Amino acid sequence: MEGHVVGVLGGGQLGRMLVEAANRLNIKVAVLDSENAPAKQINQIASDLHVTGSFAKASDVRDLASRCDVLTYEIEHVDTKILEELEGEKALVDGTQWGRIQPSWKTIRTIQDKFLQKQHYAKYGLSTAKSIAVGTSHPQGLKDIADELGYPLMLKSRTEAYDGRGNYPVRSVSDIEPALKALGDRPLYAEKWANFTMELAVMVIKTAQDANIDAWESMTMAYPTVETVHEDSICKLVYAPARGVSKKVSQAAQELARRAVSTFTGTGVFGVELFLLEDDSLVINEIAPRPHNSGHYTIEACHMSQYQAQVRAILPELASRIPPGSTDLRVPAAIMLNILGGPLPESHLLVVNAARDVAGAEVHLYGKGGGRPGRKMGHITITGSSMSECEAKIHPLIQMVNAVRAHRSDSSPASATAIMNTYAELMKSNPTPPPKPVVAVCMGSDTDLATLKAGLTILKTMDIPYDVHITSAHRTPKYMLEFAEKAAAQGYKAIIAAAGGAAHLPGMMASETSVPVIGVPVKASSLDGMDSLLSIVQMPRGVPVATVGIGNSTNAAILAARIVGTSETKARQWVEEHLQKMEDENMEKEHRLQREGWEVYKKLDS
Amino acid sequence: MEGHVVGVLGGGQLGRMLVEAANRLNIKVAVLDSENAPAKQINQIASDLHVTGSFAKASDVRDLASRCDVLTYEIEHVDTKILEELEGEKALVDGTQWGRIQPSWKTIRTIQDKFLQKQHYAKYGLSTAKSIAVGTSHPQGLKDIADELGYPLMLKSRTEAYDGRGNYPVRSVSDIEPALKALGDRPLYAEKWANFTMELAVMVIKTAQDANIDAWESMTMAYPTVETVHEDSICKLVYAPARGVSKKVSQAAQELARRAVSTFTGTGVFGVELFLLEDDSLVINEIAPRPHNSGHYTIEACHMSQYQAQVRAILPELASRIPPGSTDLRVPAAIMLNILGGPLPESHLLVVNAARDVAGAEVHLYGKGGGRPGRKMGHITITGSSMSECEAKIHPLIQMVNAVRAHRSDSSPASATAIMNTYAELMKSNPTPPPKPVVAVCMGSDTDLATLKAGLTILKTMDIPYDVHITSAHRTPKYMLEFAEKAAAQGYKAIIAAAGGAAHLPGMMASETSVPVIGVPVKASSLDGMDSLLSIVQMPRGVPVATVGIGNSTNAAILAARIVGTSETKARQWVEEHLQKMEDENMEKEHRLQREGWEVYKKLDS
Repeated sequence: MEGHVVGVLGGGQLGRMLVEAANRLNIKVAVLDSENAPAKQINQIASDLHVTGSFAKASDVRDLASRCDVLTYEIEHVDTKILEELEGEKALVDGTQWGRIQPSWKTIRTIQDKFLQKQHYAKYGLSTAKSIAVGTSHPQGLKDIADELGYPLMLKSRTEAYDGRGNYPVRSVSDIEPALKALGDRPLYAEKWANFTMELAVMVIKTAQDANIDAWESMTMAYPTVETVHEDSICKLVYAPARGVSKKVSQAAQELARRAVSTFTGTGVFGVELFLLEDDSLVINEIAPRPHNSGHYTIEACHMSQYQAQVRAILPELASRIPPGSTDLRVPAAIMLNILGGPLPESHLLVVNAARDVAGAEVHLYGKGGGRPGRKMGHITITGSSMSECEAKIHPLIQMVNAVRAHRSDSSPASATAIMNTYAELMKSNPTPPPKPVVAVCMGSDTDLATLKAGLTILKTMDIPYDVHITSAHRTPKYMLEFAEKAAAQGYKAIIAAAGGAAHLPGMMASETSVPVIGVPVKASSLDGMDSLLSIVQMPRGVPVATVGIGNSTNAAILAARIVGTSETKARQWVEEHLQKMEDENMEKEHRLQREGWEVYKKLDS
Repeated sequence: MEGHVVGVLGGGQLGRMLVEAANRLNIKVAVLDSENAPAKQINQIASDLHVTGSFAKASDVRDLASRCDVLTYEIEHVDTKILEELEGEKALVDGTQWGRIQPSWKTIRTIQDKFLQKQHYAKYGLSTAKSIAVGTSHPQGLKDIADELGYPLMLKSRTEAYDGRGNYPVRSVSDIEPALKALGDRPLYAEKWANFTMELAVMVIKTAQDANIDAWESMTMAYPTVETVHEDSICKLVYAPARGVSKKVSQAAQELARRAVSTFTGTGVFGVELFLLEDDSLVINEIAPRPHNSGHYTIEACHMSQYQAQVRAILPELASRIPPGSTDLRVPAAIMLNILGGPLPESHLLVVNAARDVAGAEVHLYGKGGGRPGRKMGHITITGSSMSECEAKIHPLIQMVNAVRAHRSDSSPASATAIMNTYAELMKSNPTPPPKPVVAVCMGSDTDLATLKAGLTILKTMDIPYDVHITSAHRTPKYMLEFAEKAAAQGYKAIIAAAGGAAHLPGMMASETSVPVIGVPVKASSLDGMDSLLSIVQMPRGVPVATVGIGNSTNAAILAARIVGTSETKARQWVEEHLQKMEDENMEKEHRLQREGWEVYKKLDS
């Protein structure tokens, strides 16, 4: 917009999506890569600025630098020596105090050597797996290290390693020689095995040029904590936000990611990969100093994509002006699925074809031409009003991805048929998951089921997913409180709780959840239900229970529909139609009464 | 994806956004327009297919047709004779029954003559303004027509008219001569004045090639009904969904739009502009046989953008495979604002600059270089969790657009300063609108205010927008019912209703709305509030009231927050923090009691 030209080292899919974002802002992006690289295909406007060559070749990098104002990356495996030289020759963008290379080559140099990267986090006291350099290719050295770290451990190449390449799991002493044989020609390090329960990731924007961990709050912004699922060491799926992760863990992941990124020099977006351990603690796995596969979902799901964030964060006038809220989700939930190459050049298009039948499956193909097994050819993002909705929509596409993978080595002309057969089998053995319940129906005792039946019957007709539980406040107090405590994270939008007599269940659940609790007073053996009503409705200030009439579970179900209907059109329409139906039925009775007279009128709906 | 090449006549912003969508699907789009047209700038991949020239020139159109499989448009002012010829030479895509020109040149020919277009709708009984061709430039002819149509009327050019060009309002007989003088060199028609209360628009996808109004349901899909605001006869703002329009009107608009589009031959997306009249009836204003300014919002706000819809609808393998739900909003609300050129080539960038400070303001610049007054240079789309949130966010940007417009003819070097001064004044005189209330607090009598005060005080601290009303069920029954009837469309997510004694208010409101109603029993002069409680809670099956304890408006407010919190994170967080605060305060008391002993313990919070 100010006319600055951005230069990007590498023009694959990350560069392509960066160009897509820059195009909308009319910012020119000069790309260094081969002739028809994905990022160049959608970038005619800067065609006189592109360089044909490789980000690994110094003269090509120098050529690109001469054509642009700010230099950035889509890959960290670049030659940082030439970047250091270029900085020495001219450090700043003309007329500014803004570095020409963002983030700094120093950041790249630290990150591209995974062992240096781990040491860097350790130096700042940032939680990460213990790592020891393997200085020799003699087995005894690694054996000593294994004694220190324990088995299993991961032997890793320090450089040029990504998507699982350059990793070798060492499960026992007998793996040591084959591991060294497989990786021994490169600089190596050993990493303590992380027994993680889940892999999380956080995209972070860094907007200030200096490195200062104490200023992490002012110089970084975090996207939501997402869940990543890897297969064959390659990212397969990203769930945004991460499923079943508490607010506390999610915020801790964002803070750790922001603190880690603030230790690096320069600006831009960073992809932070984390392990969630069994005790809910977090360790940093690794960080990419650029847009990242775990951030593709931001294009559809967030107010600002990671690519627009990169463009803005590296430019002098724009970096400091990214407003709070830009990294927020604009939809409740999203899932990203990678499309990898299959056995034949066209095999991955079977996934694209399947996506055509899924409403809201946004396909991004990278323009790489024919696929090769395991190559990233594109991705699909699904957005929805709940994670459950997204899961149901993406389900057939995951089966198709699995089918392509199952036949990855079958490059016979018939492999497409084989893939489709496997897909059909997978769809049969893995039916689409039912939608997650949004209403929980809880009873203090199974004798309350009789009272709840009318309400449950109505819930069934509504097409609002629900489930039913026995959670006695007095017989299973801890279970009941735990159920309530997890209710919000489970996705419940309303809890119906029925109880009689002392009737503590609804009120006790309400004290452990932020979800609205609807209380149904059950008529017990004495007092005609008045005891239950007063126990449920007369809650102390601060903890409300939405109480309905004695025994009136019908109204509890309809009230739940009204609550769900404040955010879901389908539920609201059901309530509106139900009100209309009641009106129509009553008017029909009135008309019949007028026609027939009261003497012969017969009540029909009893 | 099947390798078909799409050719597009015209490469402005609509063509550019079409290319953006096609790029993601790896579908090549050949563009016919000038050398550096917006659509070509992001389209290197098809650079060997583009034609430099004009969509108005037959030989250029012929050249483009020779390079592509399917031909479409971004503008309807094309020469249909050459298209007719091309169809005669080769009608179908190789190996298919699919027309090479989508939508058909016949459709374009009808639509590009506005009078033929109106006659076309009239022929199918589709509601539209009465129109009469003005066959002569002699004033008497128009006078006779005016006697038939009445004043005011609109004199319009039949062809080459868009963005208000070619329209002349005739308010009285004295306007007739100047009107004919202004437009008299072209074919004209007179149109009955439409006294509309609002302009609506619906984007429609047509997926079948033939025209058949009886099959409108199977061959068309509608995007949501949106509200368009024009200024200087150019689209300024689009609100999706249309504000304050009932579900009934909104559905009627979609049906009318789909029926109208189904009368045209060929496939693609169509922009249908409608007038909403005072009696809630609708008339078709005009239809564009292509993506439309009123559909830009779909890029961020819908599951499938109008541009992707166009790409898919015109291709043989894809048209029939657009799944239901693709045209749905994926966010609750969106607003689109056009960025028009100002007095200097850079003036419109003041709007872009202001948008940088608004989280989630997605800027689309069209790559047109320097701006000219009134030229469409770009647009901004804001998405949000409510229309009210979008309105607050876009407010400063509308003021900036207004400021640029106010100085449109001031091309002095100081005009940027003048614009910024006007902007500052406008922001002062038009403060950002407060967020629309999501909770309505209603009382049966103003004496109930004393009971409601505690709850209102809590609502104030919550940062949940609310308002307060007196809506007596017995003294103002009709007003009360009307209020309830409109509550859902007004955006309320909960109604708190307080009443004492017979206490009919909560239940009566609940019978006229789908919004959850929370009842607060007010203690009246007798029975200690038990009368109010039972009147409110013991509702008949079908119409629930969420009843709280007698006089406990605090709990009513917190219950409202829990309900709002099922869809708004901020409200849920408030409830969670409030539960935590209550726990902390009570534990503090417990600790103090243990420290001090019960003999000296003093209650502090009374």
